[in-house]
Amino acid sequence: MVAVSALPSETPGDEVEAVVADVFARGCTSRRTMENVTGKWGVLALVALREGAYRFNALRRRVDGVSEKMLAQTLQTLERDGLVRREVLATIPARVEYTLTPLGAEIADQLFVLVELLEARVPQVVESQAHYDATHAKR
Amino acid sequence: MVAVSALPSETPGDEVEAVVADVFARGCTSRRTMENVTGKWGVLALVALREGAYRFNALRRRVDGVSEKMLAQTLQTLERDGLVRREVLATIPARVEYTLTPLGAEIADQLFVLVELLEARVPQVVESQAHYDATHAKR
Repeated sequence: MVAVSALPSETPGDEVEAVVADVFARGCTSRRTMENVTGKWGVLALVALREGAYRFNALRRRVDGVSEKMLAQTLQTLERDGLVRREVLATIPARVEYTLTPLGAEIADQLFVLVELLEARVPQVVESQAHYDATHAKR
Repeated sequence: MVAVSALPSETPGDEVEAVVADVFARGCTSRRTMENVTGKWGVLALVALREGAYRFNALRRRVDGVSEKMLAQTLQTLERDGLVRREVLATIPARVEYTLTPLGAEIADQLFVLVELLEARVPQVVESQAHYDATHAKR
């Protein structure tokens, strides 16, 4: 839980009202943003865009397995949240490019650290899964 | 993409084979683990468990809005991946407690950094959403 801003009270003695973001609260915007950002395709699109600008089809190839519909929906949500910028280039034919905004880049950097950690821990995860399956099959 | 281990070649001149984890590859274990860890309930359960051991119902109250079924499924997946430990305590009545494993703690710490960043950036996200909605409604 992070207090994201505090409104200065106009009258001395008034309580200072703080706007608080809490991902644990189901109605909080931060939780919806977290869902957009940490959804499977959200993570992959943001981390891919760290590599530079992508056109739609190139990004779709990079994010192995995503459908056209899901990628379009993911990018639209990330654009609405202010993490991704969609730019129509004045070329013939017109091209559409996607890039990270500064806010998107900040969050993508953090996701990249997480992705690298997860990739590095895959052997441990695989070992744990094998152990779990062997133990629970016997029951 | 992270090379997670390299098998030493037995014969000089053999190519060194590297086991490579790549979340962008749809078949990779790291992508499935990422989905488990970054799923909405996965993030919240892991970050909540940073606060200490939780019994099922207390954790369900902490993770506002999760159903019993979804939380049970989330915890089982995280246990199988080796991130969460499920312990049956020898009390009367028997109690079940969930804690993070060292691997789970490492990943939860990373998720916590991400959550704090997202919570802090909520005002920017809200502003961007309002701008997007105003712009796109006019079209």
